[in-house]
Amino acid sequence: MQSFELDKTDVSKLKHAISGDNELLKATLEEYHASEIAILFESISSEDRERIINLLAIEKASEVISEMSEESHPEELLLQLHPDKRTEIVEELDYDDATDIISQLEEHEQKEILEDLNEDDATNIRNLLTYDEETAGGLMNTEFIKINLNLTKKDAIDEIIRQSEEIEEFYTVFVVDDENNFKGIVSLKDIIKAKGNAKITQMVNSDVVYVRPETDQEEVAKLISQYNLTSIPVIDANMKLLGRVTFDDVIDVLEDENTEDILKISGVSEDEQLGGNWIEAVKSRLPWLILNLATAFLASAVIRHYESTIDRLAVLSAYMVIIAGMGGNAATQALAVTVRRISLYDLTDSQAYRTVLKEFTVGLINGGVTGLIVFMFAYFFDGNQMLGLVIFLAMTGNLIIAGVTGASIPLFLKRIGIDPAIASSIIITTFTDVFGFLLLLGLASKLLL
Amino acid sequence: MQSFELDKTDVSKLKHAISGDNELLKATLEEYHASEIAILFESISSEDRERIINLLAIEKASEVISEMSEESHPEELLLQLHPDKRTEIVEELDYDDATDIISQLEEHEQKEILEDLNEDDATNIRNLLTYDEETAGGLMNTEFIKINLNLTKKDAIDEIIRQSEEIEEFYTVFVVDDENNFKGIVSLKDIIKAKGNAKITQMVNSDVVYVRPETDQEEVAKLISQYNLTSIPVIDANMKLLGRVTFDDVIDVLEDENTEDILKISGVSEDEQLGGNWIEAVKSRLPWLILNLATAFLASAVIRHYESTIDRLAVLSAYMVIIAGMGGNAATQALAVTVRRISLYDLTDSQAYRTVLKEFTVGLINGGVTGLIVFMFAYFFDGNQMLGLVIFLAMTGNLIIAGVTGASIPLFLKRIGIDPAIASSIIITTFTDVFGFLLLLGLASKLLL
Repeated sequence: MQSFELDKTDVSKLKHAISGDNELLKATLEEYHASEIAILFESISSEDRERIINLLAIEKASEVISEMSEESHPEELLLQLHPDKRTEIVEELDYDDATDIISQLEEHEQKEILEDLNEDDATNIRNLLTYDEETAGGLMNTEFIKINLNLTKKDAIDEIIRQSEEIEEFYTVFVVDDENNFKGIVSLKDIIKAKGNAKITQMVNSDVVYVRPETDQEEVAKLISQYNLTSIPVIDANMKLLGRVTFDDVIDVLEDENTEDILKISGVSEDEQLGGNWIEAVKSRLPWLILNLATAFLASAVIRHYESTIDRLAVLSAYMVIIAGMGGNAATQALAVTVRRISLYDLTDSQAYRTVLKEFTVGLINGGVTGLIVFMFAYFFDGNQMLGLVIFLAMTGNLIIAGVTGASIPLFLKRIGIDPAIASSIIITTFTDVFGFLLLLGLASKLLL
Repeated sequence: MQSFELDKTDVSKLKHAISGDNELLKATLEEYHASEIAILFESISSEDRERIINLLAIEKASEVISEMSEESHPEELLLQLHPDKRTEIVEELDYDDATDIISQLEEHEQKEILEDLNEDDATNIRNLLTYDEETAGGLMNTEFIKINLNLTKKDAIDEIIRQSEEIEEFYTVFVVDDENNFKGIVSLKDIIKAKGNAKITQMVNSDVVYVRPETDQEEVAKLISQYNLTSIPVIDANMKLLGRVTFDDVIDVLEDENTEDILKISGVSEDEQLGGNWIEAVKSRLPWLILNLATAFLASAVIRHYESTIDRLAVLSAYMVIIAGMGGNAATQALAVTVRRISLYDLTDSQAYRTVLKEFTVGLINGGVTGLIVFMFAYFFDGNQMLGLVIFLAMTGNLIIAGVTGASIPLFLKRIGIDPAIASSIIITTFTDVFGFLLLLGLASKLLL
């Protein structure tokens, strides 16, 4: 298969097939990978989704459902299906995927689905539902290849082949003792390379990174990424092996965490669905805008305080917006660099200190340069040298404040255990607005009037 | 090993060991994984780094160097080392890692290092250096397990064991024909499960996603993430197998792309190093601030145009900053959601249209609600009903403009093939500043004076 995304030609081909009979649709669907059909689902009606799922073999149908993005609401599609079909599909899903989807439903709907499942699947999914979605327990899959420490090479290979009938994808074989205590991992390659009479205990690698079920997903992602792992075992406090988190789950976590960061820094609640409707968007953004309004009143109180100054020199209001706008943008720059740096690395105290110092210097220089440009404008255009000086000082001062607050507020929040991305541009620009106006109007009232 | 980050206790233990003799340091280093030592390197002097590398076994030393972040400049460490040590380390590195590091050096330094290597390694790295760093060719590793289509099960296993002496990590076995044309993949599991006399040709999976060396790294990352692949083959136009890109490279790419997005949207050049010094930061941010200054002059020209209006009603300048500030933040919200959505999904035309419509509605409602709050303030505090009405209208209008531009500008840029994240808050807030002032002051001059 040539590599491709689902491009426009594919989409119209598929949509054409949807408008045709089942035979054509079925034949067309066979040309596409489950994850591509899942992308198609983002732009077709729920009736068409249901029809397609019913046309697909159970295995592919469940793959499509597991590949659907949260935004496309696979749980709603599950509810639409005939209960028998639904049960078949859920039983085919990996436990972690089934749990993710079912967890989005109301309790009575969850109960209805779980009651129809076979005992074993229902118990596994019920257990997984008890973990917080954003922890290793919530991410982990409870299906994995597990062999006993005392097996010989030959028995181990037989056992792996037997277990792999059920588990399609595995990258690592987990090793336990007779009491099911986790003892380490072994690769299929090492087993094959071993001498004929070798035992697993001679090949097991016990120096393995693992996590507890309550470990935060961001931590799990960092470990998988740092140690380049295909999967990481999840172990309880008694050293029992509970499951594994695989690299593909972690890629999704990283994308989610990055979405959260970019939204929070822009003053949008982290739980706004990117493709959500306007009601969700209003709910997620209005509180932040009202907070911003409160802080804007603060900035405007500064202006009211100096109303007589502006009355006597109306051109100040034209410069006011330049100083405030530049401060806001410089603060956003410092904020973005610092938040991203905190989220990728753990900064030491001295690194944090040097970051603030660096932003001070950057603010001084960028403020000085842009302040000089505005000075020249005021000098040549407004013919007022003293006004130019006031603006120069206000610009430099405000860009220093912008840099220092943009860097130190997220660092401070991280220190006291609050997500630094919450120091959104909304919070930061309050500082630069208030201080920008205070500097400009305060200096103007002293030096110009 | 218990899962952990390199916490403060570890860092001080290691730093204590650094201040001690080689014996203590060597013993302490043995307790830590290469990737942990790479983290330590971020906060110690270059002399200490060199000393540690010289104390470690070649294999671990090369692992440490390959795990060092770009920010810590592993290429500088390489240059510091004794040429013999350096050659040993470079020969131990995977070709893709060696190429990444060497590519950061000046041409004469590259030449010096490559000349000391054995012929085979030097040729491989020279070839890799010709690919753009941000393509599949730049990311790929040329070491992989490759077997002939016509091998029997037994010969294939022998061949895999032989090749895996050289290649520690592999997740998939690549299959080629006698002319080295790529024919598909086969998993070790399937080979083991096959009957004794089976040939690889009966087990090979030829329906495989692959990329060309010139494929952009973002596209490679999307494919690996979409199809949950541990590795993806890189094939040239003649179907020859050139290399493979593995999931761990892609995790790094995703983090880099996300850093770029968050920086660009905040008006910082994508190539600013997060931990860079103030000179780099000034170079990366000053051009954006000067652009912002130019647009701020535009907004302030609007104010100058209405200077007589402000002269007669100075309180308007207090409301001006509220309208502009709210518009800027609402635009940033719409921008962040839209940019992130574009970067994760390919939107169809109708989805793009509905996105803009949604942001119009969100702007109307959020503008109406916050406009009403400001209306009441003007009514009760300034006792001016008509002023309140003007502000209400300006706020609502500006938040609609904020939503529509915040969504449509990145969508438009994507359409014409420009990175949508470049529609940074700096560009977007120009619109809301200019239109906010035009609305408020224009309406005020008509209705209030």
